[in-house]
Amino acid sequence: VDRETCAGLDRQDPLGGFRSEFTLPEDLVYLDGNSLGPLPKATLPRLTELISHEWGEGLIRSWNAAHWIEAPQRIGDKIAKLIGAGPGQVIVADSTSVSLFKLLAGALRIQPGRHFILTESENFPSDIYIARGLTQMTDGTHALRVVPRAELEAAIDGSVAVLLLTHVDYATGEIHDMRRLSDLARRHGTLALWDLSHSAGAVPVALNADDVDLAVGCGYKYLNGGPGAPAYLYISRALQSAMQSPLSGWMGHADPFAFDREYAPAEGIRAQLTGTPPILSVAALEVAVDLWLRVDQAEVRRKSVALGDLFIRLVDDTCAGLGLTVASPRDGRLRGSQVSIRHGQAYRVMRALIDRGVIGDFRTPDLMRFGLAALYTRYTDIYDAVDALRDVLIQSAWQRPEYASRMTVT
Amino acid sequence: VDRETCAGLDRQDPLGGFRSEFTLPEDLVYLDGNSLGPLPKATLPRLTELISHEWGEGLIRSWNAAHWIEAPQRIGDKIAKLIGAGPGQVIVADSTSVSLFKLLAGALRIQPGRHFILTESENFPSDIYIARGLTQMTDGTHALRVVPRAELEAAIDGSVAVLLLTHVDYATGEIHDMRRLSDLARRHGTLALWDLSHSAGAVPVALNADDVDLAVGCGYKYLNGGPGAPAYLYISRALQSAMQSPLSGWMGHADPFAFDREYAPAEGIRAQLTGTPPILSVAALEVAVDLWLRVDQAEVRRKSVALGDLFIRLVDDTCAGLGLTVASPRDGRLRGSQVSIRHGQAYRVMRALIDRGVIGDFRTPDLMRFGLAALYTRYTDIYDAVDALRDVLIQSAWQRPEYASRMTVT
Repeated sequence: VDRETCAGLDRQDPLGGFRSEFTLPEDLVYLDGNSLGPLPKATLPRLTELISHEWGEGLIRSWNAAHWIEAPQRIGDKIAKLIGAGPGQVIVADSTSVSLFKLLAGALRIQPGRHFILTESENFPSDIYIARGLTQMTDGTHALRVVPRAELEAAIDGSVAVLLLTHVDYATGEIHDMRRLSDLARRHGTLALWDLSHSAGAVPVALNADDVDLAVGCGYKYLNGGPGAPAYLYISRALQSAMQSPLSGWMGHADPFAFDREYAPAEGIRAQLTGTPPILSVAALEVAVDLWLRVDQAEVRRKSVALGDLFIRLVDDTCAGLGLTVASPRDGRLRGSQVSIRHGQAYRVMRALIDRGVIGDFRTPDLMRFGLAALYTRYTDIYDAVDALRDVLIQSAWQRPEYASRMTVT
Repeated sequence: VDRETCAGLDRQDPLGGFRSEFTLPEDLVYLDGNSLGPLPKATLPRLTELISHEWGEGLIRSWNAAHWIEAPQRIGDKIAKLIGAGPGQVIVADSTSVSLFKLLAGALRIQPGRHFILTESENFPSDIYIARGLTQMTDGTHALRVVPRAELEAAIDGSVAVLLLTHVDYATGEIHDMRRLSDLARRHGTLALWDLSHSAGAVPVALNADDVDLAVGCGYKYLNGGPGAPAYLYISRALQSAMQSPLSGWMGHADPFAFDREYAPAEGIRAQLTGTPPILSVAALEVAVDLWLRVDQAEVRRKSVALGDLFIRLVDDTCAGLGLTVASPRDGRLRGSQVSIRHGQAYRVMRALIDRGVIGDFRTPDLMRFGLAALYTRYTDIYDAVDALRDVLIQSAWQRPEYASRMTVT
């Protein structure tokens, strides 16, 4: 595979037109859209309108006139289309962590007599933190069980209230079989709660078709909603009326402006709202989701697999003997929209790569992650990234002393 | 008092220069800054820079390079200056409701053997909802006691873990004596948690000097942080290390990028962070807070009282016999930065007022609220508002049928 072959693939790419809808610096190969998606060009005009006109001129009236009040449900319904859910099943609110806390707490409440939240040790640490924080509030009535992936299925039994899993492994990109594990959980009366943070906009998700109980997801990764964009949560139709949020704030009240002292939850998914949502960040997320609604998801998956296959092939072909190991599944069907590569000095190698304009990220202890967002990543970007990686390793550029010191965030 | 007298007061107003730092439509008297503060002119340029340059060009690197990662603490330290707190005592995160949940849950945990959260029936309903939602999670070990204001002090005893109060009453604007009630609570071993949503930017708050334990507050009212701006929370130095957040997310971890499976809370106030904060909304709040740091708080209070006194005097002088009752304290020392007026048809009267370009809001069942934000409200605005109010009542303009139907939000 040479660069011209890749350029040919780019010219034939049915998604090729979407790249121009993003601001992407010319000199950069950006393979970190799984941490922070790039800026859609439509975002600044929308935010300018929101700030100048809706906030500046409309002031308080814009909660109605500019439909801010409906934004969490409206955008939730749009995201629903990306993850195989229907209207009224998804709502945008808070962070992924806060959303996860709400659903876990709500799930424990409707699973009396079941004492465990079960997850795998490979799960995203933040999800584990939230589950543990919740169980520590319950005065010993509930506990978190964290088992290695290999022991997960055997650990699902009648004592497990909720099975908490991330659909696409943040480290390796390995995809769980959401359907099979949800069904297995259901046979034991266990609710399955899926974190879709590395799934929406990356791999196919069919929540209703796969009979999924509960899900949360992130707005700022593949969805491109902006730094710290609000999250979303999903509840199956069967569970909607039973699921009560412990974070029962005024926005989830049946009649927020009645100012009743008694709390009466809203009908449906709106009951999951808590406080007033951050409208500027919410609006940026909506711009990004609107762009997604024009995209053929099947084409995204096809290209994402092709980009990953290309990345792995180039590593195999050009980086042999340079100390790299492919940590992601080689079978594209099992791999999310990323390729992770191990190297004994992964942190330094990634620093050196970033210095050469190839941005991926590092995950402790030895992992380089390359996000392959099909919406704007070119085949030539993959070629250039692996070429730079090879160059950094051959020249031992990563040994330069300035790459040794740790940054706070990559 | 005639309009020319008011115009004279405006000319002499030491805060008069700040009005030009806000976008305020020419034809509007905006007295709803206690619900949504107006747009600082510096906000759009800052958000444009953030979106175009920091997100668009810097991408993931801006978490470090543009100091996004430090924003919750940095802005918290700035807000601290407005409420009499010190560095490391305040942090910006989530909504007021979520922040309140964190502090209430943390407080219950360090008050073993005490079973009650105590609040008054006059408290902001949303705060009551959150407290109730929390106690419903505790399987009967904790409960919420809601008593009328008159019975509040007698109800503070050794069974009360937390006294939860809003400093300035959202309905009437009446100010609680924060020092006295905090001291009273402390004598019973009760922690006092204050909601400052109608205080910061409105009335003097001296958290450290008044020995306050815990507080939360809102970013989008008097602070002018934008619709749904993130909230802040405060913890006294004495309680910092003891207060654990139940919403233990990755941003509150001692080393968020170690991706440890075990949760180790950060030192100090950062342990109260949960998920990734919505940076666009966070940045808008910082612009507004930076403006506040240039303002003489004593002058704000002086003018706020003068505006309220003027409002009440004009109502007394010009609206006698028109069915109005002043619901706010007439003594400016006891009144926050608002005047609330009762009328049997308050909803319709407010609709008619808004149609005439005077924006206040309605609170059920019979209350018109007029927020008097000293930073941009003119004495002539007060004159024009009461003049319009009198006119609406004399002409019975509120009886027009289009004012009968309820809007969702005012």
